Amino acid sequence: MTPDEFRQRGREVIDWIADYMERVEQYPVLSQVKPGEIRAELPPQPPAKGEPFQDILRDVDRIIMPGITHWQSPNFFAYFPANNSPPSILGELLSAGLGVQGMLWATSPACTELETHVLDWMADMLGLPEHFKSSSTGGGVIQDSASSAALCALIAARERATDGKSNLDGADGRLVAYASTQTHSSIEKAVRIAGLGSRNLRLIETDNHHAMRFDKLAKAIATDRAAGRVPCFVCATIGTTSSTAIDPVARIGEYCRAERIWLHIDAALAGTAALCPEFRHLNEGIELADSYAFNPHKWMFTNFDCDCFYVADRGPLIRALSILPEYLRNKATESGAVIDYRDWQVSLGRRFRALKLWFVIRSFGVEGLQARVREHIAFAQEFAGWIRADDRFEVAAPVPLSLVCFRHVGGDEINQRILDRVNSSGRMFLSHTRLNGKLTLRLSIGQTNTQRRHVLQAWEQICAAAS
Amino acid sequence: MTPDEFRQRGREVIDWIADYMERVEQYPVLSQVKPGEIRAELPPQPPAKGEPFQDILRDVDRIIMPGITHWQSPNFFAYFPANNSPPSILGELLSAGLGVQGMLWATSPACTELETHVLDWMADMLGLPEHFKSSSTGGGVIQDSASSAALCALIAARERATDGKSNLDGADGRLVAYASTQTHSSIEKAVRIAGLGSRNLRLIETDNHHAMRFDKLAKAIATDRAAGRVPCFVCATIGTTSSTAIDPVARIGEYCRAERIWLHIDAALAGTAALCPEFRHLNEGIELADSYAFNPHKWMFTNFDCDCFYVADRGPLIRALSILPEYLRNKATESGAVIDYRDWQVSLGRRFRALKLWFVIRSFGVEGLQARVREHIAFAQEFAGWIRADDRFEVAAPVPLSLVCFRHVGGDEINQRILDRVNSSGRMFLSHTRLNGKLTLRLSIGQTNTQRRHVLQAWEQICAAAS
Repeated sequence: MTPDEFRQRGREVIDWIADYMERVEQYPVLSQVKPGEIRAELPPQPPAKGEPFQDILRDVDRIIMPGITHWQSPNFFAYFPANNSPPSILGELLSAGLGVQGMLWATSPACTELETHVLDWMADMLGLPEHFKSSSTGGGVIQDSASSAALCALIAARERATDGKSNLDGADGRLVAYASTQTHSSIEKAVRIAGLGSRNLRLIETDNHHAMRFDKLAKAIATDRAAGRVPCFVCATIGTTSSTAIDPVARIGEYCRAERIWLHIDAALAGTAALCPEFRHLNEGIELADSYAFNPHKWMFTNFDCDCFYVADRGPLIRALSILPEYLRNKATESGAVIDYRDWQVSLGRRFRALKLWFVIRSFGVEGLQARVREHIAFAQEFAGWIRADDRFEVAAPVPLSLVCFRHVGGDEINQRILDRVNSSGRMFLSHTRLNGKLTLRLSIGQTNTQRRHVLQAWEQICAAAS
Repeated sequence: MTPDEFRQRGREVIDWIADYMERVEQYPVLSQVKPGEIRAELPPQPPAKGEPFQDILRDVDRIIMPGITHWQSPNFFAYFPANNSPPSILGELLSAGLGVQGMLWATSPACTELETHVLDWMADMLGLPEHFKSSSTGGGVIQDSASSAALCALIAARERATDGKSNLDGADGRLVAYASTQTHSSIEKAVRIAGLGSRNLRLIETDNHHAMRFDKLAKAIATDRAAGRVPCFVCATIGTTSSTAIDPVARIGEYCRAERIWLHIDAALAGTAALCPEFRHLNEGIELADSYAFNPHKWMFTNFDCDCFYVADRGPLIRALSILPEYLRNKATESGAVIDYRDWQVSLGRRFRALKLWFVIRSFGVEGLQARVREHIAFAQEFAGWIRADDRFEVAAPVPLSLVCFRHVGGDEINQRILDRVNSSGRMFLSHTRLNGKLTLRLSIGQTNTQRRHVLQAWEQICAAAS
């Protein structure tokens, strides 16, 4: 494909996406295909000769689209938002067009410097402590996901707790990590991957609001210490996936600092709310944390992948992950004057993800971002009000932000039937969790174009299904 | 930005990229900026109000471009190729526009099924063993990088070697991994991350051609076994980063099978050559491997990130990485009839990367891909011939494919000066390695649009610098 053909085909894809934005509400939100249906439409062998681009784009419509669950539909209320925006798409496009490798400062200085700069911006935008900024002892980096961020935090914690010994001799089975029963599954995955073992992860009980019980955490740590184990890592969550529960970060942080245990904060979804001063109380205590992660690819209009991961001290992270073979040596690295982000992540290679975040922040402006977030939270509060006012339903957990956990009072079976009915209609998509043993429906608001009318329609459909 | 504004701005970005493709040779290949120069141009605070998109695109030209090292220049001969193509860019664009999450089959069935299908295609295209296909015991998955693939392979190996015990109790310090002194640094990084510890990685000596010495490997394994350690993982490389050395996979594979040790093949760059039947001898012995990785984002015209990772048996991988919280439970997963790729990787989230690989394969066709790869290899062979015919230079390693390692016979200092001179000219970009203790220049051919004239110019510049 020549550059001129690319101009032509590129316009067609841009138009395709613009059309998609305009017509996304017309698709069933949850894909209705059965396992194997998509593959059955694809030829068993790849083509020997190149095919015209029009044929490929036609097959996107014909074969791929029926198998898409529309995360960008304003009627998508399941799981968590993975919201997106035109400037983000264009930033991703430009990144693909430039095709640079950002593994070292030297392999494209702008890729590294824009990332550092935009992550410092983000720290100010969210009111994060100064030590998370690159001008201080710490700094920020874009990871693909909060899972990878948690893994890197755990590796750095392991390095610090063992004075580098685990890097050399391995995780020795005495290291222990802590999270709550409501913490995201990525923490257990990280604990496994890092060689601590699932049995050395303590899942601490939660209170009535699904937040970690500090007393139980302190007790578990003391018990482990008494048994000769080495507590090295606590993950506290600001806004759990299941119900937006908020762990008591300040108390946990004071304790971790006194005990010299690494505190990681997972604020993957809820972190974005701190853009608004009136929600910045969410950050209480994070000045005591060693690391912090939140995902612009969830609720800040930036397409996946874009997780912002901050450390208060970049030393242990870099010591844990830096290996410099001869073929990557260069003067800038040796000068010590630059950041090489390959030492801040699992992979060596990395693409230019800061572009899309920069495009989003500049296109929306801080006030534009705040306005959308406030609107989503207001919709969720209004929806929770409707639930509370209806005797058939109950709110199942506090609603601090944009997720409403609720259930029909008639028990699990009726809730399952409501879920199945509204989802199979294709007109909206809800997901579920289990709180206090009970099946609970989750309405998560955060798609970029969700308006009050979509939330109202969702409520009407839920009511109709309940009747 | 409305859909209609997106149409307009999208065209501008498409045109910007097409212009970039046309003018990329005019930029200095290696960015000439000093540390901090890019950041100094960026405002210290993010904008409160949204800015017009034209201003952002203008700043890309003004601020970002001077800090770009042009991996897409046909005069880029450094490190390894990260080649790209118009269909790949359009696939990435479409993926960004759809904005789906592919963590579970249910969260967008087409994202999973297209990936499985295209990876089965790739297995056939490369002549990989049947058991690496989804129709058999194994299957393929797209990872972000060969680093992540190696980590996943190691985790699965650890799980298998300990019958799941390491998942529960952690890596116990007895597990040992093996690679050669020339193996990519990502293996040591994986060994650290997985909690085995760097001291439990044996870096086996290489032969005159920089390939792993099988006798030394077998001896190291026997020594460890005798000492009560648990050999669990060998990484053999088909085409090392430093010099395209090819480890004796068949002998290593037979031994690993007899010893029940996981064999992982890193063919990140060289794997692509197996598209051509005349280079498929590279695959000799891979039917004995437990896992295999190669990167379309290196040499198969697909923009980063796109690593294809295959396992012969998906069981240990999934057992090692699967954790299913309530909020992700769904009927398709429970039916066992679908793949949930979150269980095949570190992260939970994943984007729709199969689209770009599908676009590339269909646009080029298998024959189109083969033609490009053959051309790159022919250029490298011709360049190696020029080196051999010139008394001032010597070829420093075998040239099986598209990388030529060479040096001026005058010693390290003169080679360093040649390197500095050609790179600071901005007209080409070479990198270096060290082989047998000697500074060695590397000319890596593989950018999509590199033609014979670019290689010839590179040779002329190297000769001029040497004079």
